[in-house]
Amino acid sequence: MVQVDLNCDLGESFGNYKLGNDERILPLITSANIACGFHAGDQHVMHKTVKMAVEKGVQIGAHPGFQDLNGFGRRNMDVTPEEVYDLVIYQLGALSGFCHIYDTKIYHVKPHGALYQMGAKDPAIADAIVKAVKDFDDQLLFVGLSKSELIESCKRHGLTYKSEVFADRAYEDNGQLVSRKKEGALIKDTESAVNQVVKMVKDSKVKTINGNEISIDADTICVHGDGEHALDFVKEIISKFESEGIEIKALN
Amino acid sequence: MVQVDLNCDLGESFGNYKLGNDERILPLITSANIACGFHAGDQHVMHKTVKMAVEKGVQIGAHPGFQDLNGFGRRNMDVTPEEVYDLVIYQLGALSGFCHIYDTKIYHVKPHGALYQMGAKDPAIADAIVKAVKDFDDQLLFVGLSKSELIESCKRHGLTYKSEVFADRAYEDNGQLVSRKKEGALIKDTESAVNQVVKMVKDSKVKTINGNEISIDADTICVHGDGEHALDFVKEIISKFESEGIEIKALN
Amino acid sequence: MVQVDLNCDLGESFGNYKLGNDERILPLITSANIACGFHAGDQHVMHKTVKMAVEKGVQIGAHPGFQDLNGFGRRNMDVTPEEVYDLVIYQLGALSGFCHIYDTKIYHVKPHGALYQMGAKDPAIADAIVKAVKDFDDQLLFVGLSKSELIESCKRHGLTYKSEVFADRAYEDNGQLVSRKKEGALIKDTESAVNQVVKMVKDSKVKTINGNEISIDADTICVHGDGEHALDFVKEIISKFESEGIEIKALN
Amino acid sequence: MVQVDLNCDLGESFGNYKLGNDERILPLITSANIACGFHAGDQHVMHKTVKMAVEKGVQIGAHPGFQDLNGFGRRNMDVTPEEVYDLVIYQLGALSGFCHIYDTKIYHVKPHGALYQMGAKDPAIADAIVKAVKDFDDQLLFVGLSKSELIESCKRHGLTYKSEVFADRAYEDNGQLVSRKKEGALIKDTESAVNQVVKMVKDSKVKTINGNEISIDADTICVHGDGEHALDFVKEIISKFESEGIEIKALN
Repeated sequence: MVQVDLNCDLGESFGNYKLGNDERILPLITSANIACGFHAGDQHVMHKTVKMAVEKGVQIGAHPGFQDLNGFGRRNMDVTPEEVYDLVIYQLGALSGFCHIYDTKIYHVKPHGALYQMGAKDPAIADAIVKAVKDFDDQLLFVGLSKSELIESCKRHGLTYKSEVFADRAYEDNGQLVSRKKEGALIKDTESAVNQVVKMVKDSKVKTINGNEISIDADTICVHGDGEHALDFVKEIISKFESEGIEIKALN
Repeated sequence: MVQVDLNCDLGESFGNYKLGNDERILPLITSANIACGFHAGDQHVMHKTVKMAVEKGVQIGAHPGFQDLNGFGRRNMDVTPEEVYDLVIYQLGALSGFCHIYDTKIYHVKPHGALYQMGAKDPAIADAIVKAVKDFDDQLLFVGLSKSELIESCKRHGLTYKSEVFADRAYEDNGQLVSRKKEGALIKDTESAVNQVVKMVKDSKVKTINGNEISIDADTICVHGDGEHALDFVKEIISKFESEGIEIKALN
Repeated sequence: MVQVDLNCDLGESFGNYKLGNDERILPLITSANIACGFHAGDQHVMHKTVKMAVEKGVQIGAHPGFQDLNGFGRRNMDVTPEEVYDLVIYQLGALSGFCHIYDTKIYHVKPHGALYQMGAKDPAIADAIVKAVKDFDDQLLFVGLSKSELIESCKRHGLTYKSEVFADRAYEDNGQLVSRKKEGALIKDTESAVNQVVKMVKDSKVKTINGNEISIDADTICVHGDGEHALDFVKEIISKFESEGIEIKALN
Repeated sequence: MVQVDLNCDLGESFGNYKLGNDERILPLITSANIACGFHAGDQHVMHKTVKMAVEKGVQIGAHPGFQDLNGFGRRNMDVTPEEVYDLVIYQLGALSGFCHIYDTKIYHVKPHGALYQMGAKDPAIADAIVKAVKDFDDQLLFVGLSKSELIESCKRHGLTYKSEVFADRAYEDNGQLVSRKKEGALIKDTESAVNQVVKMVKDSKVKTINGNEISIDADTICVHGDGEHALDFVKEIISKFESEGIEIKALN
């Protein structure tokens, strides 16, 4: 039976600021990528989010990003591999602190935003991220963009990886995501998005923004929990998967 | 033989800003309290400091503080015990990340600045700190002000503690440190400071700012590494200890 | 005819985080207190908020607070008067930058959260805030808690002040707000809150949490814009003022 | 008589962290570029630095940078022109607050680090910076890299500009500074550096890292104040200028 994981970025609130519907998306997903206080989240939000994930039995992953709260970690920064290595270690450590107190651990790591995008394209950045994850705990699963430099780096370092696809994002011919700054980056029509996901999971194929079909690996699907529409969309995917005989299952 | 530990706050540089002489003080001390990125330090400084401590064989401790870089964690903040708990867990986790990659661990925890002072006086804050340390790892040693609420809290929670004394700080009759805002808070005369330390270690007594003698427990002495004078002072203490037959030995 | 101003804290969003309904509350109020990037707001939010206030013809005021984004400026900090003076100057300057580019200026200043509360009680903090405001521009109006140390300081410094009252907050016998940590701090019943406001504006009296009646000066009323309920409440006040013959008019 | 200005970046300390010898470099220079709290400096340091510059009669300029304290504003960030515009306005406003209280004003603006370098190469970033400066105060002088996009943008916007040269930095054939990451970026030999400056001021020429001679405009020379060597170097330049008949004079 075809299996796939549903992952979602969680714990992105900060202080007095609330983002997302973590309570409502958690029962729908199998893997939670928890922000670690650099691009989003803070120590209180992390504590609360880890606690909720434990209670719901959702697998905990770290979601490290750039130290750019104002830009939500979405702005590329001209960082060195050494800087990347250190910021990943710091954030994995910080999240693991909250896992400790609930007798659980981090199971996977998925970089956030600009860190993810830069790592997907730049082998040196990819290596810095992957090396940090492996040095921290070589049993961790790495979640990265399918067919990207992140996956190549995992192969080089012998770190187990899971290829991620996006339901609502358009793809370039080279397998990269279409930049959010470009027209057509987001697939807004629910049916198209659901169909894209099913095709990716069952056929390991996706049609690019230019109409070409490329191969893709879909171990896990990134979904979102902010807004009523996002929640409905996840439910649509789940229902479609049921009818298509696709089993939703946590990564490890 | 009388034994005592010498501890020093390290890793307090930040980005382009350098503070202290970590390279030069490390060979002289037995315990390093490493800043964790909230009141001082950053991920790069933490990495470098852990690496140096490992190379020199100095015991690593965490030095968590308030999230107040501009005030260097020295300004009291009206925080809840829950906020304190979470900021301690976060910082212990973050530092432990860097320990992991050097196959070592955190051995002790000493709160910084205003967090230390508030914990020394307020049982609720003390409990929040001590509970976080114990929940994180119940084998950790807690370093707190001798005879303070921090020590009382360790007794309540069954956490092993080490009482700290200060060579160059004057004491109030109740055993608290004289506030830095008050005249006479710092003992500037080297001989007086050295004599105060010896008396604390050998006789478990200290003369307060009011001239009274109170009892004190001296498991570990806080020394400083910033400035030529500070280094010389540490050397004076070490030399005096030798002649007095006091052995310098790491906490655990 | 009795006149009163309606003021609201605006521009409290930050980066990816949205707070409040600035677009919807602006048409209802006469004075906007704009966050200046320390406890909330950022340069982009400030720009957008100043622009909106100018377009709606709402008087612009500065709303400086402590540099504590995580605590939303609501946590007391043990700061010196010098520190307070400098953080007020910095924030007034920053907001005035955005006023410049729209050929307008800051007309009033109202401190935020813990800075407001500390200034209301502590003459030294009040003096530091008031002196900064006066040194920055002695034509500025100061908005402070009625009968508080902030108002006393304005009298001492010869700075024009406007006394603020809160529709939905309970009062202590000494005229201070009941702490948010205490039961009954917030008046949740709309009718009670509206009646309290009318009484404050027309009779210069308020019934305290202990049932005593104290005198109060109501030049301006603090309202809120976050949430549907808050907006409805403001509309209720406006409608009640109409029927009571109270004119709503900007501060200066 | 040939005239030139000596400018130096000042006010780069932060909280407990001290950087530079502001007290000692101030008497030697004619223009002070004061950090505005984003990449360096804080409200207390800004206050103190403005006060010192006023006392020494040194012309005050703003030195805005990226909001990246950890990277000291030296890391390129993928920002939009709108983001750049807003961060410049915010920082100019903040510094002007401290100028107000000493009855002085900002006379010039020189962007810092990565903001300066990105503006020197990218017309859209240059336009955002220059437009912000002009909108804030169209009487401000703009200090930018000679022959760079910053200068071109000033020409387009009709903003008065002053071309800056560096004594101790090597130049590429296209007039850009050799990146600090490349070998030979810094000219460490004092005599070579002094000779390079004199040639730039008197002949408007500089020899590039590749040995070619290119033309350059030298209205103002960037010098540094951190370290004994830096101070001596400035004294060498001043003494050489005297013997060469070059007058040192503030920008406006």
